[in-house]
Amino acid sequence: MKIFEIQGGVCAPKGFKANGIHCGIRKNKFKRDLALIVSDVRAAAAGVYTSNLVKGAPVVVTKNNLTDGFAQAIICNSGNANTCNADGLEIAETMCSLVESAGGIARRDVIVASTGVIGQKLDIAPIDSHMDELWNGLGDNSDFAAEAIMTTDTVKKTVAVEFECGGKVCRIGAIAKGVGMVCPNMATNLIFLTSDVAITPEMLQKALSEDVKTSFNMVSVDGDQSTNDTCCIMANGLAGNELIASKGAAFTAFCKALNYCTVKLSRMLAKDGEGATKLIECRVYGADRKCTAKAVARSVIKSSLVKAAMFGADANWGRVLCAVGYAGVKVNVNAIDVSFASSKGELPVCKDGFGIEFSEELAKEILSQDEVIININLNSGSSKATAWGCDLTYDYVKINGDYRT
Amino acid sequence: MKIFEIQGGVCAPKGFKANGIHCGIRKNKFKRDLALIVSDVRAAAAGVYTSNLVKGAPVVVTKNNLTDGFAQAIICNSGNANTCNADGLEIAETMCSLVESAGGIARRDVIVASTGVIGQKLDIAPIDSHMDELWNGLGDNSDFAAEAIMTTDTVKKTVAVEFECGGKVCRIGAIAKGVGMVCPNMATNLIFLTSDVAITPEMLQKALSEDVKTSFNMVSVDGDQSTNDTCCIMANGLAGNELIASKGAAFTAFCKALNYCTVKLSRMLAKDGEGATKLIECRVYGADRKCTAKAVARSVIKSSLVKAAMFGADANWGRVLCAVGYAGVKVNVNAIDVSFASSKGELPVCKDGFGIEFSEELAKEILSQDEVIININLNSGSSKATAWGCDLTYDYVKINGDYRT
Repeated sequence: MKIFEIQGGVCAPKGFKANGIHCGIRKNKFKRDLALIVSDVRAAAAGVYTSNLVKGAPVVVTKNNLTDGFAQAIICNSGNANTCNADGLEIAETMCSLVESAGGIARRDVIVASTGVIGQKLDIAPIDSHMDELWNGLGDNSDFAAEAIMTTDTVKKTVAVEFECGGKVCRIGAIAKGVGMVCPNMATNLIFLTSDVAITPEMLQKALSEDVKTSFNMVSVDGDQSTNDTCCIMANGLAGNELIASKGAAFTAFCKALNYCTVKLSRMLAKDGEGATKLIECRVYGADRKCTAKAVARSVIKSSLVKAAMFGADANWGRVLCAVGYAGVKVNVNAIDVSFASSKGELPVCKDGFGIEFSEELAKEILSQDEVIININLNSGSSKATAWGCDLTYDYVKINGDYRT
Repeated sequence: MKIFEIQGGVCAPKGFKANGIHCGIRKNKFKRDLALIVSDVRAAAAGVYTSNLVKGAPVVVTKNNLTDGFAQAIICNSGNANTCNADGLEIAETMCSLVESAGGIARRDVIVASTGVIGQKLDIAPIDSHMDELWNGLGDNSDFAAEAIMTTDTVKKTVAVEFECGGKVCRIGAIAKGVGMVCPNMATNLIFLTSDVAITPEMLQKALSEDVKTSFNMVSVDGDQSTNDTCCIMANGLAGNELIASKGAAFTAFCKALNYCTVKLSRMLAKDGEGATKLIECRVYGADRKCTAKAVARSVIKSSLVKAAMFGADANWGRVLCAVGYAGVKVNVNAIDVSFASSKGELPVCKDGFGIEFSEELAKEILSQDEVIININLNSGSSKATAWGCDLTYDYVKINGDYRT
């Protein structure tokens, strides 16, 4: 099956428009802070959300609005998470109502999200007063929407693909934001996907829920699980394929294209982790079970000591083995091989759980690249998993030492 | 019951001598790197160890040597963890044999420990050639031993107390090292305790195993669980109290004095966490169960975002609530109160899960102290727990970005 990357982000699929403006939630007037994505027609919709017990009000409202499996618009602000506020639910509901007033989309068909500081009242006034401007600017503006959902992100995260599904050319597009408070076991921060595939809400939810297990849930920046994580997809059917209502070739094609997008975004999210200078990919092979491979990959990616060593391009593989050892799953320590790799080559550093001689010079060169791979072979089976993270840097501390004030 | 702090560290209890020298494992010749603690007579002994599957060779040897419940000496080097080396067990056994050769203590009665880099061969030669010097210098030198087990520790960690037990004056002394790779669910890095109490090995083990649940296992610096964590105690009975062989007033007195020492060391370990500028104490009240309180306290103390906010003296209580929410235990989010406190006063910042107005100026002042308390009242019961950690700073990254090379 062929998957082609195309331009256009969330507007690449047929029948989607987007916009992003500065409405005034953020003080910097050059920073867009309000995004809107709209489908021409009502679309099947699905979502996965944070498993944090402290849930942002928008998460509660979105989950409720998606119970019928349909949506037509996504509204999202940055600069304030609308979480832990006494009037949070009311504000989130009002954001949906404002979309209804401006564009005639039923408020129950609106996905709402917020990202930013927790526990500060979100003023609805700037959103209210800029809703017409936001609506009237809808067009091929995926990048504006991508910018508007960014917080400390340094790059826009967007992807779009074209693929064949049920004999028709179909598309998936997406934007995402991430950077801090990013940890496995949730759907990472905010990811909005669009597609023109015709699919039932049930199959769409199935595809998304399955997908995040190997994509966003395998990303960690800092081990902190956000209160507002939301990954939603709308599929409006305008590609004209036969409705996907069960498993089969068409569903498989859709899932593959979806996974292409989500893995690409996962890597982008990890690489742009707060303060990060490099992407770290941990590939675990030879596990007895899938869950073992996943637990090991995530444990290594989350280790502060591994992350700091990667920042310093220090081939301190003992820390990798240490993180394998506390992953909480049974492994045979004396069967583990470890190697570091990047565009500069691959270097074995540990064999059967013991250190082996290696060139420190080559290690330094390999680890100084902006994408580094930690290969771990457990030599105990055929299961594998990949997780993505980033290094721990001075800038992570700087960004988070004074984020709020 | 009265507990008096006294001088002398591990040499404060009757019949214990110590020493610490530079033998050459570390390059810096002004840094002691080899410690020895010896009891005049064979002592009841107990230990708790890392739960990491990757265990340092010294941990394996020590566990084995303590199966009979007795020991007479502790030898420990810094600069090399003797872990993940093919000849690790042999080297650790040899360290015990060298104590036997130098001082006539059976090698099965020796506790051995190593701390430092993982996966590099530990050369036995400098230990061998300096064993007589080490043995001959034994005396009231607890501080030399405390220095010799330090790695990136910036201060010596030592405590000693005097208390009454079974009608006799008894003592407990201790030295510890910690700083990095420190995380709950283990006995933290290296802690060596001595006592002149007469107690059976069984009761000694019981006291220690119970104790670490509320002391060292409630400390986290970076969430990384070391491969070499060892906490051992020797009790030689020279205080002359009636042998403690079961629960009762004498056992309770011993446990209280022990906990005084371990909590004090826990706070020292947390405060001297790698790069730390302050101690963070998280006190959780009003939990429905003890395990809930502990899980919440540990989750908050481990959060990178909370730690970074504390570094910046930023009253970002939303991150505290967020960490409560992903602690993995059931709590009623809408019943949670949070306050920050220090020597400058206490400031409520969150009531019933929602933000309340507070003075940013006072918050900054409170959080700028070198010991900060995060109070969390779950308002759902009467269980409580305390955990200790530190802030996340530039220096943590610096220290760990290039530790090995």
